Amino acid sequence: MKNIVIIGGSDAGISAALRARELNPEIRPTMIVADNFPNFSICGLPYFISHEVADWRNLAHRTKDEIEKAGIDLLLEHAAQSINAQSRQLTVVDTSGSRKILEYDKLIIGTGALSVKPQIPGSDLPGVFFLRWVPESIAIDDFIEKHDPQTALIIGAGYIGMEMSEALVKRGLKVTIVEFLESVLPSVDVDLGNKVRDMLVQNGIDVNNNISIESINKDGNKLIVKGTKGFEISTDMVLVSVGSVPNTVLGRSIGITTGMKGAFKVNLKMETNIPDIYAAGDCVETWHRILQKYIYLPLGTVAHKQGRIAGENAAGGGNSEFAGSLGTQSVKIFDTVVARTGLNDKEAAQGGYMPLSTDFETWDHKVYYPPAEKLFIRVTADKKTKRILGAQMLGAYKTEVSKRIDIFSTAIYHEVTVDEFSNYDLSYTPPLSSPWDPVQMAVQNLEKAL
Amino acid sequence: MKNIVIIGGSDAGISAALRARELNPEIRPTMIVADNFPNFSICGLPYFISHEVADWRNLAHRTKDEIEKAGIDLLLEHAAQSINAQSRQLTVVDTSGSRKILEYDKLIIGTGALSVKPQIPGSDLPGVFFLRWVPESIAIDDFIEKHDPQTALIIGAGYIGMEMSEALVKRGLKVTIVEFLESVLPSVDVDLGNKVRDMLVQNGIDVNNNISIESINKDGNKLIVKGTKGFEISTDMVLVSVGSVPNTVLGRSIGITTGMKGAFKVNLKMETNIPDIYAAGDCVETWHRILQKYIYLPLGTVAHKQGRIAGENAAGGGNSEFAGSLGTQSVKIFDTVVARTGLNDKEAAQGGYMPLSTDFETWDHKVYYPPAEKLFIRVTADKKTKRILGAQMLGAYKTEVSKRIDIFSTAIYHEVTVDEFSNYDLSYTPPLSSPWDPVQMAVQNLEKAL
Repeated sequence: MKNIVIIGGSDAGISAALRARELNPEIRPTMIVADNFPNFSICGLPYFISHEVADWRNLAHRTKDEIEKAGIDLLLEHAAQSINAQSRQLTVVDTSGSRKILEYDKLIIGTGALSVKPQIPGSDLPGVFFLRWVPESIAIDDFIEKHDPQTALIIGAGYIGMEMSEALVKRGLKVTIVEFLESVLPSVDVDLGNKVRDMLVQNGIDVNNNISIESINKDGNKLIVKGTKGFEISTDMVLVSVGSVPNTVLGRSIGITTGMKGAFKVNLKMETNIPDIYAAGDCVETWHRILQKYIYLPLGTVAHKQGRIAGENAAGGGNSEFAGSLGTQSVKIFDTVVARTGLNDKEAAQGGYMPLSTDFETWDHKVYYPPAEKLFIRVTADKKTKRILGAQMLGAYKTEVSKRIDIFSTAIYHEVTVDEFSNYDLSYTPPLSSPWDPVQMAVQNLEKAL
Repeated sequence: MKNIVIIGGSDAGISAALRARELNPEIRPTMIVADNFPNFSICGLPYFISHEVADWRNLAHRTKDEIEKAGIDLLLEHAAQSINAQSRQLTVVDTSGSRKILEYDKLIIGTGALSVKPQIPGSDLPGVFFLRWVPESIAIDDFIEKHDPQTALIIGAGYIGMEMSEALVKRGLKVTIVEFLESVLPSVDVDLGNKVRDMLVQNGIDVNNNISIESINKDGNKLIVKGTKGFEISTDMVLVSVGSVPNTVLGRSIGITTGMKGAFKVNLKMETNIPDIYAAGDCVETWHRILQKYIYLPLGTVAHKQGRIAGENAAGGGNSEFAGSLGTQSVKIFDTVVARTGLNDKEAAQGGYMPLSTDFETWDHKVYYPPAEKLFIRVTADKKTKRILGAQMLGAYKTEVSKRIDIFSTAIYHEVTVDEFSNYDLSYTPPLSSPWDPVQMAVQNLEKAL
């Protein structure tokens, strides 16, 4: 019987373990988890801080009990300390410093990522927070409970910054956002970002773009934060959310090669360069299906897919391949949902395509059935092949924006052309769509311009 | 310049006219409309009767003005009387009986369908209604306004029957449904239909299956309706909604051949057997993409696609082909949405496949973010090829059921297998999905059983 050891109990790790068991119920994978929170939804942390989730324990996708009942042995609060790739041994250490050596036939590394900690003087002061793991969210919640802050500054307007701005407003704070790029939510085009900014402003948030933070200083109970262009603010707390870096220390120590942003290089089977060691999730490079190259893309959906492949290959013959990501992402901010898949115009041009993008705005369903909401859809196609390369969409929560982007995602996976997209037999009923769904209207509009 | 004449101003007709103009702006199609309501959303009629739509005029997809500005000549309240296929002439007659002869190069017939009028004695009594076109909905609304009925009987529990049951409950009536099949909403499997029935009952509706209506009699202001198994009810009004039949009188008179349920036979270019005469929409047979045969499937989405193809071919070279329907349908009934695409188990077996269907129930998004709602998903695949053949889904309104069925629809169009379905890069954010979307979890569950 194969001995599978998995380092990390988040998306990639759990997906690998479950898949290995599914294919071979005789396998009982061992999962090493550094903290006491296996299989937590770290994407859900902002909703715990907003108190929409009453208890952070609810964020567990599965309880420890459920994981163990699924046939996975958990080693909680154990740090993976060293790997002997020759003898196939992993040394782990618990919080008391006591060591244990685990034998493995196949090792899967799913150590995830860490928050980027920018070199801002003062970013280690009390009241300055990062957010990636459960303990950090508890620290933020504790701080709000104990110190009753009135104001917060969020540095970085990516997904976590956006979700946390809503969360802190919901906790009654006056929120200011600073982003060094020209728009918020830089994962979508600037003008979509600007629509998001307008919506944030309507929700009472002060948004500042094109500013870099240079220092944080303590002044009594306040934090004085200064940036470029004379930016200066006195605030009660600061959240730094400027991205993530792969957590690869252990793997590098045994010579696992790294690439983009320092993430582990893996092939499509999720194998590293060291025999019998797989890696998956936020600690690895990710194959982009349309760009046909590796990028760094730390997303839960990707981690699950890669973990599943790693688990499948570790358990069985080893011929499953990761199909690649399209960079599909969605986020709900207040009552707006923004989603994207594939490439935008700029990325497509950089990827060697000849892109054309057009915009289309229409109602999410027949306007006579109230209330209908406007959807904004930008579609990008290649002028030469007429293939759809990407889509970006913005609309109200509950107008099926996120699963509409998935129609694009599925279509792009199959390399559909703009004209063929009209063949899709999409569902219609007046309270939910039109005889041509908005996504098809948007593509027909692009087709005319190609 | 080509002279295109279109008989019918509903989905197929308007789609044909717009597409012809789009491809050749010199063409100015003439559209013959029997009534005064071109391009109305007949799917929206139940929402006018419910008064969710305040004015039936709002149901126009486009106003007459907009249609004419789009470059389409309208001939309203003109009935197409006869066709001379040799001389390529169409004779139309207006309400005063005055005739006009129109020359055509290409004729497109989009005469739609009519309500099935079953041979029930008394079904022509006042207070007994059918619903397909605008005037019928106005008649129903007038009747409710003038006679203040307290009770209604709906015969037939298909889409219109279901939507009208909600509409009449919203108008304050006590509603009874009678359906001769064993479950309501027979377009989905019996046990999904039974979930719908339970929901209808919870909304105060009396539901009776396996009963055929045999007579309707007047008794003062009441209608006495009797059926098999001793069914008898005294009611204030009756709606008969037992399906539709293609409206093909004119076409048959010049020898256009018909097939399934008497609908016009057309090829994939939407050509009839008569040169230069196309037909599209509810009056034609529809190619089913998975069954690879013609069926009768009167749906607005299909009519739009077929009309677009007919318009394209009439305007241009004539090589566009209809890709076929997957039978995708969705309906909202009170706060429940039911959707389907592709084949169910029975249809797949009849179509020569070796189907296996499995059920899966999960939350529409992460359950920790309230309120999450349960989705019921049944997926059907072929045991031999592992191809996904169909899906049926039921869930709460606003849980993206309808666009989730479209992920299946898009996947089935591309003949995806169950294992490849997990490759799709579907969007995730906790308020809207899971790292594996429910549709992927449902397919992974089926994969295990195959």
